[in-house]
Amino acid sequence: MGNDQASTMKPSCDASSAGGASAIPRSPSSAAGKLLLAPSGPDDENLLVPYTQDWTHKWKAPQCPAVLQPRTTGQVAGLLRHCYERDLHVVPQGGNTGLVGGGIPLANEVILSLANMNQIISFDAASGILVCEAGCVLEELDAWLRPYGYIMPLDLGAKGSCQIGGNVSTNAGGLRFLRYGSLHGSVLGLEVVLADGRVLDMLSTLRKDNTGLDLKQIFIGAEGTLGVITKVSLQVPPAPAAVQVALVGLESFEKVREMVMLSKRKLGEILSAMELVDAAAMDVVVGKAAWGLRNPLAGGSGANSPFPFYMLLETSGSGEAHDREKMEELLETALDGGVVGDGTVAQDLAQAQEIWKLRELIPVAMEEEGRVHKFDVSLPLSAFYALVERTREALEEGGVVMGEGGGVRVVGYGHLGDSNLHLNVSVPREAPDPPEVSRVVSRVLPWVMEHKGSVSAEHGLGQLKKAYLPQTKSKEVVGVMRGMKKMLDPKGILNPGKFFPDDA
Amino acid sequence: MGNDQASTMKPSCDASSAGGASAIPRSPSSAAGKLLLAPSGPDDENLLVPYTQDWTHKWKAPQCPAVLQPRTTGQVAGLLRHCYERDLHVVPQGGNTGLVGGGIPLANEVILSLANMNQIISFDAASGILVCEAGCVLEELDAWLRPYGYIMPLDLGAKGSCQIGGNVSTNAGGLRFLRYGSLHGSVLGLEVVLADGRVLDMLSTLRKDNTGLDLKQIFIGAEGTLGVITKVSLQVPPAPAAVQVALVGLESFEKVREMVMLSKRKLGEILSAMELVDAAAMDVVVGKAAWGLRNPLAGGSGANSPFPFYMLLETSGSGEAHDREKMEELLETALDGGVVGDGTVAQDLAQAQEIWKLRELIPVAMEEEGRVHKFDVSLPLSAFYALVERTREALEEGGVVMGEGGGVRVVGYGHLGDSNLHLNVSVPREAPDPPEVSRVVSRVLPWVMEHKGSVSAEHGLGQLKKAYLPQTKSKEVVGVMRGMKKMLDPKGILNPGKFFPDDA
Repeated sequence: MGNDQASTMKPSCDASSAGGASAIPRSPSSAAGKLLLAPSGPDDENLLVPYTQDWTHKWKAPQCPAVLQPRTTGQVAGLLRHCYERDLHVVPQGGNTGLVGGGIPLANEVILSLANMNQIISFDAASGILVCEAGCVLEELDAWLRPYGYIMPLDLGAKGSCQIGGNVSTNAGGLRFLRYGSLHGSVLGLEVVLADGRVLDMLSTLRKDNTGLDLKQIFIGAEGTLGVITKVSLQVPPAPAAVQVALVGLESFEKVREMVMLSKRKLGEILSAMELVDAAAMDVVVGKAAWGLRNPLAGGSGANSPFPFYMLLETSGSGEAHDREKMEELLETALDGGVVGDGTVAQDLAQAQEIWKLRELIPVAMEEEGRVHKFDVSLPLSAFYALVERTREALEEGGVVMGEGGGVRVVGYGHLGDSNLHLNVSVPREAPDPPEVSRVVSRVLPWVMEHKGSVSAEHGLGQLKKAYLPQTKSKEVVGVMRGMKKMLDPKGILNPGKFFPDDA
Repeated sequence: MGNDQASTMKPSCDASSAGGASAIPRSPSSAAGKLLLAPSGPDDENLLVPYTQDWTHKWKAPQCPAVLQPRTTGQVAGLLRHCYERDLHVVPQGGNTGLVGGGIPLANEVILSLANMNQIISFDAASGILVCEAGCVLEELDAWLRPYGYIMPLDLGAKGSCQIGGNVSTNAGGLRFLRYGSLHGSVLGLEVVLADGRVLDMLSTLRKDNTGLDLKQIFIGAEGTLGVITKVSLQVPPAPAAVQVALVGLESFEKVREMVMLSKRKLGEILSAMELVDAAAMDVVVGKAAWGLRNPLAGGSGANSPFPFYMLLETSGSGEAHDREKMEELLETALDGGVVGDGTVAQDLAQAQEIWKLRELIPVAMEEEGRVHKFDVSLPLSAFYALVERTREALEEGGVVMGEGGGVRVVGYGHLGDSNLHLNVSVPREAPDPPEVSRVVSRVLPWVMEHKGSVSAEHGLGQLKKAYLPQTKSKEVVGVMRGMKKMLDPKGILNPGKFFPDDA
């Protein structure tokens, strides 16, 4: 206690064992040591696949010649300088877990993988300030911090593969956003290499520093179009002494909205997650027999979901008895008042993890159902679930075969506390999308814009949504964005054809 | 409950009554209604004084011809376009409470005051999202939000005069930073008028929106050099149901550091302020007989401070009984373990306000002592108070007359939880600074840089500290900052001669 000297450690965060189950398989790391990875013959043709395709098989680079895997900032700077002088295009890549094609080349760009820059540089256990390289895997950082009594300020389904540099580059949100807020608040500093190889050292370790423009902010969420993030300094929060997880079932979305308000009021500062799972999403996950998951509110039958809506509530606090009392009072009030129909609180860590899996494995389960149209939108709670209902209705009206056993499935889930909805529409892989499905999914984002939502709450723009930028931001704002790009990467070698719309 | 439709209200926030005492006198508002304020004769010579001088009398505009007071964004745009076309220089100004001369003209710039743009535009009581004009006064916004069960995410001594636009432009920190974090996290959107009159509408009301670069971030803390903030959208936190304030006395700074760790551990998520007041600061405030304040740990005598250090601890939580239990347990542990020598918890709001005044009135009390050299720095806790001790020692060694009754006074206070120290050195106004004082104060910021601190934790650069920018940030980083300025204000009409160092 009382020791706040910065303690410098140099273990690889690869070396620490990761805690908890990961929803997304790790990339193979057989060729991890090499600076340049390029196929040398027919035996090698799959060498680059973990980098040139994403795990959902939606995005695929047509002809990526090589993957660069630098180990130091100096190497990143040297490689970028080389590429810049020769007008070679570069796609920076973290854990390749993005969902909008932002990290996958469009043509013959080389991939600059940060995977080999995975060292923890320093951690100050008194202040909770972590400095590490961009390629550190999120889950491994979280596990590394736990013995010091700290956790990472963000958590997401891809935690077992995604890298902190990619998280920052995409301004990742995720499951702890409600409690610990945006990366714009918790990132204290960055080291960034610009397109021409200039290194911007903005790696502050101070909570407060008002000297000059806060330049690092512009790289948070820039999706690798303005520079390559090589190091990150983060304020990480203390690990909560007590965590509780509850699952409640609700009869309508109106009740869900009531429960959101009630939970905020009753749980206050210990509320750390408030997730929605609709009945269709619950059924898809519970339906994967091999996973052995059950809906704890379904009774012994294992039949279909007894409620149209579920909410997962998590508290993270410093006093177990106090936190339990608050949670019990919330559930009592909600049950007595008819806001929830049923509810259960996990009695141990294993039960808590089972409940979390019901939420976290939804995207993985949907991938097994077919090709998935994924929508990640912000919507006011008043319009939140109407989007899912309208999508379902429009498909039904169009005569599309819906439901289990080969039909199109529509599920809604997401972060209620942040008004962030994930709408997934799966279509069996055997055939191309029926025209009616294409028509309905093409109307989702326009509907979101009409209802004053965001067409990308947390996944970013990448390839998938870049065309929407001019529809959601004014001409003047997009003009200044282009000015920033022009200033920092005048030749446009970084992540070309992404993020900014084509009509330049 | 369950109503999260955006409710639009149009009251002036001037109309609501402000709660709590304000440390800094409000500007006179006799001429508030006029778009253009300019002296028309000798009777008018003091008309512009509230705008052309700051309250500490340190900064004074030599020949400001006029103050512009637009009421709408359109007027701001029109005025800036006019100035831009004619190369007229403009200083944007909020409540004129800054401490580094950032809002005071250097030569003949006109002042663009946002004081008349003081309307609340909308507030959504379900989500806690407030949209208002830049000229709304911080304390009035806070008072306006309270009936809805919300508070502002920041609080500072100047709250009675400072404006939210100025707060955002200077990335103000203050007393709630520990709990609610940086404005980079809580500002959801901004409307900004660029130097040439272009309006950037970035006024999002969504908690999450990853569509395009997060441009608004670059204007937070830019001190009016890149554009004029006209509207602000903010995520505001729920008002805590229970607030407790405690004051403890400690025998050494080593004990202070122990208490910081202990308080973080015991109070966890309800800890909302952790302020340092040293004995010299306590004595200056208690010594202002007219204020009638007493040190509650001094016994009946009213004599000088019995402890070398004090800490003010505040909790803000949702459960009064729980919070009281946590605070009591902390104080018991700290007293039993000899970490603190004595302590008291305010029994009601009046007592809590009395304790807060002991901290908040330090800068006002110091102004009465003389001309004040103010330092606002970030330092690791290991070096935190050493700066105050070294400054005192160096002055004593130099033979400077110290202490009450006409001597130089050196006080240290500030935000322990954020490692943010305020060091104040007051010199009697009767004569210019003795050379020894000048020598010692000139060494403060170099010492901070040697100890890896920030020369401006929260006050910004303005006129006072712009020369330090190239010493604290690399050539490449300052180069990109200049590039941003050049892109957004190519003629350099906004706040010229500030923020950026001269050697352009």
